[in-house]
Amino acid sequence: MSRELQHACGLFGIAGHPDAPQLAYLGLYALQHRGQESAGICVADGQHLERLGGMGLLTEAIDQRELAAIVGTMAIGHVRYSTTGSSSVSNIQPLLVRCSIGQVAICHNGNLVNAAQIRRVHEEHGHIFVTTSDTEVILHMLADRHFADQPDPLAAVLRHLRGSYCLLLAYPDRLEAVRDPTGNRPLCLGQLGQAWVVASETCAFDIIDAEYVRDVAPGEIVTLTPHGISSRYFVSPGTVRRAYCVFEHVYFADPASLVFGENVHLVRKEMGRALAREAPADADLVIPVPNCARCAALGYHEESGIPMGRGFTTNHYVGRSFIQPTQTIRDLTVRVKLNPIRAAVAGKRLVVVEDSVVRGTTTRGKMASLRRAGAREIHLRVASPPIRHPCYYGIDFPSREELIAHGRTVEQIREYLEVDSLAYLSLEGMLAAAKTANGDFCHACFTGDYPIPIDPAFHKDIFESHQLRFSYVEGTMR
Amino acid sequence: MSRELQHACGLFGIAGHPDAPQLAYLGLYALQHRGQESAGICVADGQHLERLGGMGLLTEAIDQRELAAIVGTMAIGHVRYSTTGSSSVSNIQPLLVRCSIGQVAICHNGNLVNAAQIRRVHEEHGHIFVTTSDTEVILHMLADRHFADQPDPLAAVLRHLRGSYCLLLAYPDRLEAVRDPTGNRPLCLGQLGQAWVVASETCAFDIIDAEYVRDVAPGEIVTLTPHGISSRYFVSPGTVRRAYCVFEHVYFADPASLVFGENVHLVRKEMGRALAREAPADADLVIPVPNCARCAALGYHEESGIPMGRGFTTNHYVGRSFIQPTQTIRDLTVRVKLNPIRAAVAGKRLVVVEDSVVRGTTTRGKMASLRRAGAREIHLRVASPPIRHPCYYGIDFPSREELIAHGRTVEQIREYLEVDSLAYLSLEGMLAAAKTANGDFCHACFTGDYPIPIDPAFHKDIFESHQLRFSYVEGTMR
Amino acid sequence: MSRELQHACGLFGIAGHPDAPQLAYLGLYALQHRGQESAGICVADGQHLERLGGMGLLTEAIDQRELAAIVGTMAIGHVRYSTTGSSSVSNIQPLLVRCSIGQVAICHNGNLVNAAQIRRVHEEHGHIFVTTSDTEVILHMLADRHFADQPDPLAAVLRHLRGSYCLLLAYPDRLEAVRDPTGNRPLCLGQLGQAWVVASETCAFDIIDAEYVRDVAPGEIVTLTPHGISSRYFVSPGTVRRAYCVFEHVYFADPASLVFGENVHLVRKEMGRALAREAPADADLVIPVPNCARCAALGYHEESGIPMGRGFTTNHYVGRSFIQPTQTIRDLTVRVKLNPIRAAVAGKRLVVVEDSVVRGTTTRGKMASLRRAGAREIHLRVASPPIRHPCYYGIDFPSREELIAHGRTVEQIREYLEVDSLAYLSLEGMLAAAKTANGDFCHACFTGDYPIPIDPAFHKDIFESHQLRFSYVEGTMR
Amino acid sequence: MSRELQHACGLFGIAGHPDAPQLAYLGLYALQHRGQESAGICVADGQHLERLGGMGLLTEAIDQRELAAIVGTMAIGHVRYSTTGSSSVSNIQPLLVRCSIGQVAICHNGNLVNAAQIRRVHEEHGHIFVTTSDTEVILHMLADRHFADQPDPLAAVLRHLRGSYCLLLAYPDRLEAVRDPTGNRPLCLGQLGQAWVVASETCAFDIIDAEYVRDVAPGEIVTLTPHGISSRYFVSPGTVRRAYCVFEHVYFADPASLVFGENVHLVRKEMGRALAREAPADADLVIPVPNCARCAALGYHEESGIPMGRGFTTNHYVGRSFIQPTQTIRDLTVRVKLNPIRAAVAGKRLVVVEDSVVRGTTTRGKMASLRRAGAREIHLRVASPPIRHPCYYGIDFPSREELIAHGRTVEQIREYLEVDSLAYLSLEGMLAAAKTANGDFCHACFTGDYPIPIDPAFHKDIFESHQLRFSYVEGTMR
Repeated sequence: MSRELQHACGLFGIAGHPDAPQLAYLGLYALQHRGQESAGICVADGQHLERLGGMGLLTEAIDQRELAAIVGTMAIGHVRYSTTGSSSVSNIQPLLVRCSIGQVAICHNGNLVNAAQIRRVHEEHGHIFVTTSDTEVILHMLADRHFADQPDPLAAVLRHLRGSYCLLLAYPDRLEAVRDPTGNRPLCLGQLGQAWVVASETCAFDIIDAEYVRDVAPGEIVTLTPHGISSRYFVSPGTVRRAYCVFEHVYFADPASLVFGENVHLVRKEMGRALAREAPADADLVIPVPNCARCAALGYHEESGIPMGRGFTTNHYVGRSFIQPTQTIRDLTVRVKLNPIRAAVAGKRLVVVEDSVVRGTTTRGKMASLRRAGAREIHLRVASPPIRHPCYYGIDFPSREELIAHGRTVEQIREYLEVDSLAYLSLEGMLAAAKTANGDFCHACFTGDYPIPIDPAFHKDIFESHQLRFSYVEGTMR
Repeated sequence: MSRELQHACGLFGIAGHPDAPQLAYLGLYALQHRGQESAGICVADGQHLERLGGMGLLTEAIDQRELAAIVGTMAIGHVRYSTTGSSSVSNIQPLLVRCSIGQVAICHNGNLVNAAQIRRVHEEHGHIFVTTSDTEVILHMLADRHFADQPDPLAAVLRHLRGSYCLLLAYPDRLEAVRDPTGNRPLCLGQLGQAWVVASETCAFDIIDAEYVRDVAPGEIVTLTPHGISSRYFVSPGTVRRAYCVFEHVYFADPASLVFGENVHLVRKEMGRALAREAPADADLVIPVPNCARCAALGYHEESGIPMGRGFTTNHYVGRSFIQPTQTIRDLTVRVKLNPIRAAVAGKRLVVVEDSVVRGTTTRGKMASLRRAGAREIHLRVASPPIRHPCYYGIDFPSREELIAHGRTVEQIREYLEVDSLAYLSLEGMLAAAKTANGDFCHACFTGDYPIPIDPAFHKDIFESHQLRFSYVEGTMR
Repeated sequence: MSRELQHACGLFGIAGHPDAPQLAYLGLYALQHRGQESAGICVADGQHLERLGGMGLLTEAIDQRELAAIVGTMAIGHVRYSTTGSSSVSNIQPLLVRCSIGQVAICHNGNLVNAAQIRRVHEEHGHIFVTTSDTEVILHMLADRHFADQPDPLAAVLRHLRGSYCLLLAYPDRLEAVRDPTGNRPLCLGQLGQAWVVASETCAFDIIDAEYVRDVAPGEIVTLTPHGISSRYFVSPGTVRRAYCVFEHVYFADPASLVFGENVHLVRKEMGRALAREAPADADLVIPVPNCARCAALGYHEESGIPMGRGFTTNHYVGRSFIQPTQTIRDLTVRVKLNPIRAAVAGKRLVVVEDSVVRGTTTRGKMASLRRAGAREIHLRVASPPIRHPCYYGIDFPSREELIAHGRTVEQIREYLEVDSLAYLSLEGMLAAAKTANGDFCHACFTGDYPIPIDPAFHKDIFESHQLRFSYVEGTMR
Repeated sequence: MSRELQHACGLFGIAGHPDAPQLAYLGLYALQHRGQESAGICVADGQHLERLGGMGLLTEAIDQRELAAIVGTMAIGHVRYSTTGSSSVSNIQPLLVRCSIGQVAICHNGNLVNAAQIRRVHEEHGHIFVTTSDTEVILHMLADRHFADQPDPLAAVLRHLRGSYCLLLAYPDRLEAVRDPTGNRPLCLGQLGQAWVVASETCAFDIIDAEYVRDVAPGEIVTLTPHGISSRYFVSPGTVRRAYCVFEHVYFADPASLVFGENVHLVRKEMGRALAREAPADADLVIPVPNCARCAALGYHEESGIPMGRGFTTNHYVGRSFIQPTQTIRDLTVRVKLNPIRAAVAGKRLVVVEDSVVRGTTTRGKMASLRRAGAREIHLRVASPPIRHPCYYGIDFPSREELIAHGRTVEQIREYLEVDSLAYLSLEGMLAAAKTANGDFCHACFTGDYPIPIDPAFHKDIFESHQLRFSYVEGTMR
């Protein structure tokens, strides 16, 4: 799948380094694959927060000269996935506000399923909302006296959030790193000399030569200051079922990263191996669909003994400024991004390995292009099960109806994709590939088994409150 | 005074025209002299609001192609004065939010003196603030159930505002144009065919060939819809003392505009005439300081019979991108904007007419430059009294200590400015120049007589409230 | 006339100052009114030439940071008038080439009437041309062995040029400043401490506090080096009739400048005085058409005793990025640049002073706009004679047929402009206004009396040459 | 080798298609890997030539909207490799000039070794040069009467060029595609319906769905018009030794392209196979250095039977706007572009396949990075021989002294690179990989055997000419 999904955003934080703003820049750079719509950095100097941000890639969104002018030893940063609309400038994260507790900034990876309800409650009590993101409700809650007056306001707020979330908050004097009780999204903790760092993936540590220490635990809040870190739990460990997003391993994360305690490359390769065992093929070459399926293809190759091949070249210069030409010649441009290598595939029986199939239209185009280039047989092997359900926790899948596997058998999908054979990896095969996680994955997009309830009716009861006097049910989310 | 003051912003609104967005663009164009920091337009189509905006001049801030893509028959727009700081992108107006009453956008000309108190109350009750402007509090109040539940929520909110304000609000189905009970800032109502327009000055009507109808009255709310206008008062007419900002006539407004019912050029010329009567001079030429003092200089010339002359040329190409060169040659660049015409002033006795003097540094530089160009005598005549007090209603004067007239006699100022004689127009002379206003001016910057109380202690009492249950004292602001 | 003519370019040069590049930038800044299409600077450090340049205003065309990185004590610069077409990037001056005599750069103010012939000869002998400007031929001639082998190659080349030209040439070790034998365009010489400067107008000296020394004489070459200047004549003084462009005084030059030895403001004012004597009017106010006619209007006012008034306000923010709105509302935008002050003109009998009238369409629009604003009578007085002939020496008038005065009597023009009376200044009146020039003006656009022959047939004879062996007729251009 | 070499430019031409300009844009898009400094397109409509171009990537250099406004059925285009210097705007190709034969545009891939001599001759005869490129001399020759008067001027000019060159020329009514007699650079001919296309590589045909027909032959000129093509030879086939640049196969060309009649991917794979036979290794994984060595690595894998692995992830978002941070943290940024996958290489014995090694510094860094990631053994295999000599035909290698293989034995290089073993592919192995070429390669950078003489002394004799009457030796270049 050639990066056609919108990603789940990337987070980076650092405390205790004189070059914090620039290290945050580099860290976000390594996380750019998680979001290309906008980027922002918020710097704390002990007294104040200052924010830079803009639309587009990091290098477009943040002027490095402006950044260099900001002093502070703590910083949080965010890269956001791509949406449309000029007004989305107000959705750039970190969000920075001033309220009763002073300045506070936040950035978020994930999706809150009860944001609409919380928002409605606040709107009813006169709060105004400037963004269209779910993240803003957290700031409204933090600013609310109901929470602000509690011994641990942040923990109190978090206990009312439903959904998936990793959060980084910046206060003038400290950062807080939060991972939801299910652990749905990844968040890693590391060290760079005396400084502490947090990031969605460890590839952001590699770029600055920081050492991975451990994951932020589900339900944990880690406080980072220039003087060190401390930890607390807002939900007792073990009381909430873990639900790591398996799609991080299937598609999102960088192969060099550790995610949920395991290397993404190895997990993907193991998925490919399992696929080879479950669905062998009699073929001449294993061909990965660029670029994401390369790890899984290597696994299929290793297990099957079929030689690796290369079926496509990619144009790395396709930028956002490329405008499709006039209608009359639009049909000619199918190969702008991906060009099949005719000589490599002509007359060959191919095992084509794909990481996942969403809509199917792009995959169908690629298969047709291999066929036109002369491939004799195409055996498509997908290193994950059919995607049949929407994700409510942060992956921007298209609507259920647009999913190729929705309401279709594998044979029907094969016919649509026009391949000689088609096989998906089984759920068991996929889950077993990541050993450390012990099967504690969210696989709702494959199975419809949603670990975090999303029935809106449930939430309506919770917010029986008047005039901003929230009577939140105290307790865990189970 | 060569546009060294930061201005009070400009407002434009239109309802009932298929080209509303573009007419708003043109209207703001004509108001650009009132603010160059940022510009924004919010369009209403009956169902939704959509906003465009950005930093810089109108032509930089708003892409006309993007604007052309927005459909709607109603629009409000704003130009804002210049400040610094990259984060001020969040201060671009109109502000657009979503809250309990749906979408609402606002833009503001003026300054609320009780914004900090209102803001503190809302912060205490958990509201979060994303801008650093006083305007945002109005949205928080509108969104508040206390006000939202009243028969006329906007009127209820307005009765609690203290300070100077003209407001344009956009809702999906209508616009509201508001002028504060003192009428401190100007707001005019006009017609363009079937469409209705509002603007800070009538020069915005001229550019689109709209007809001036009348001023929005102090304490009035005019509702504009595609189908016509209606009016109501949130404070009974006549119950609040009027306090038109005399500085609009002295300096801010465009000479072609009607402001407070009178043409600015004529009022300025009358100020110049009065100045000639009060402070005659024996001189060869009347020289206006470009560009603002030209009208007053014409008045002095008419009354005194001394011929008009021209003392300076101006460089219209000084843009924001001009960077001062290295220190070594910085001293050479004093004439980047204004170049004296030596041949015109050498050996001449000059009456130099200035509209006002704030810090005095620029004026001193101009006088020195005339002297170096060979002027024999310089008789400086200022068409307004000495500025000795800060403005709390929207003019961004420097601090009291930086005002040249603060703590100095006219003779001391004359010595500082190094002119042969110096005279200011008297308060009476200035106020009499505008006949229609009948003396109902705010002249606090000259006299310290503040028409709207600014003692914060007074306001603290008003906001005795808990948990956002505001117990505003209902009543007028008298 | 509101700057609707394309101007004749501006030149600036400096030698012997460590900040030469930046001083050239400032100098060009002061000359921006002479050209806004493109700008360029070429710096010499004794060994090499380096060039920066781009399209648009100086601040857009040249990055001040890039400029600051260039070291050199000599520099020449150029601002060019506005044309259209993206390919004109190759026309940015100074032109910099490498040829047999090493690196050489050139910039030019004026127009060569025999450029096409010279170009054709060079094309026939295999030279290639990269620009569409007449200036490039001078470089081709300089590079030609025929000239390069002569004792004074530059002088030899110049003797073959026909037309109007001020030139600045840069070699790695020196600058050459040239003025054509007729002196058609202005070129001034000044000093800044030990450094020497040249510029089209003295306003470029004012901005850097340089002192005017004298004009470069017609037919003179002044060589500027870091160590001082030297002078020689390529045509003996007095052998060629002088022909100063009177339109510099009428319209082009900055009022603060000395041009042809006289202050522009004073000359324009004298034109206005003469106009008042020749064509008095019974009126209430003298109104200049902004911005160029202000000096002439002051002269009319002084001589007539009729008070000065102000009829228009101007919008200084009209930038190049302003796009005309859709057709439907285009008619509304007539007042984007110029807005009449109704209150100032309503019911008044006006003497409107204009510097010159070219096509008449703009003037007609302004008169109509004054009429709509209520002017009772409009007596248009033009401070120069009717323009009836094209200029071949650098002014980009429209074609003869588009000139309002072509083939029309003054009465017919008056009818077209819809004014109550119309009078032009007489040729004698105009020429007498500048005393120093002693009438040695080119006034061909008014009279058709062309001081430099422009019959192409004449030139064909001159270039009877083979294989780049030019057999130029040696001698002066008389 | 990670694209550290500056490339040899890319050419594209099309005749006979109404969308010629936009198809040229797409074609250049597919050739972007051959040059990223600047791009340009010149369109012919039968009467005139019009050019667009700019600095940077194609999408930055050419505004698609401007392009869409140009009408013409013929176009040539060029992408240029990266150099520095703001003045290089004058080096953008196609160069477009006007001369005795009218308008002519040219673009060039390759390098002329006698350009300096030709240039000197022209300079001596008075020609001026505006670019610093060798290409410009061709235009000067074409414009020269000596050549223009010959029956086939272009052929006559070409016979005097020495070096490597593929050229596309545009005249108002036709295109000419030229390949030098040695065939050093590739140039392919194809068809798109009735239209004819030429391009440096066939990947430019793929993107527009054109069909490859044949290569333009060494010494051939193909004329393309809207009505078809014709061909002639300027040097008799077979009289000049062919010398195809083997580095096109080693590194430059896109794997999907046909170059010199063979698919690049297959040739590279065969190089890898030969490398495995010549230099086997006992290892666990074959690891390609991204991105260029992937094809060769697949060959090594196939031949050796060692499984393929993946050692690195690459960041595709590294743009030109990335500025290195402050010195203090610069050391941290070694992994900005390439991040090793620790889990994949730790404890493994690796065969690392590289396409070529130039300076060695980057390769050394990558090897160190694999070592730090835990690789147990590193056996570096390079799929081409050691580079020990400069290229005079268009590859911008660093100076001889900077080449790691210059003056070092393989063992010394191994020590420098700090790998456990190192082997290069033999010359014979490399040349045998491409069968069709039959060994007719230029391999001077490996062997010092220069097929085209580069002794400047030789050329001095040729240009004994006077006054642009070139007495070129007529004949072939052997």
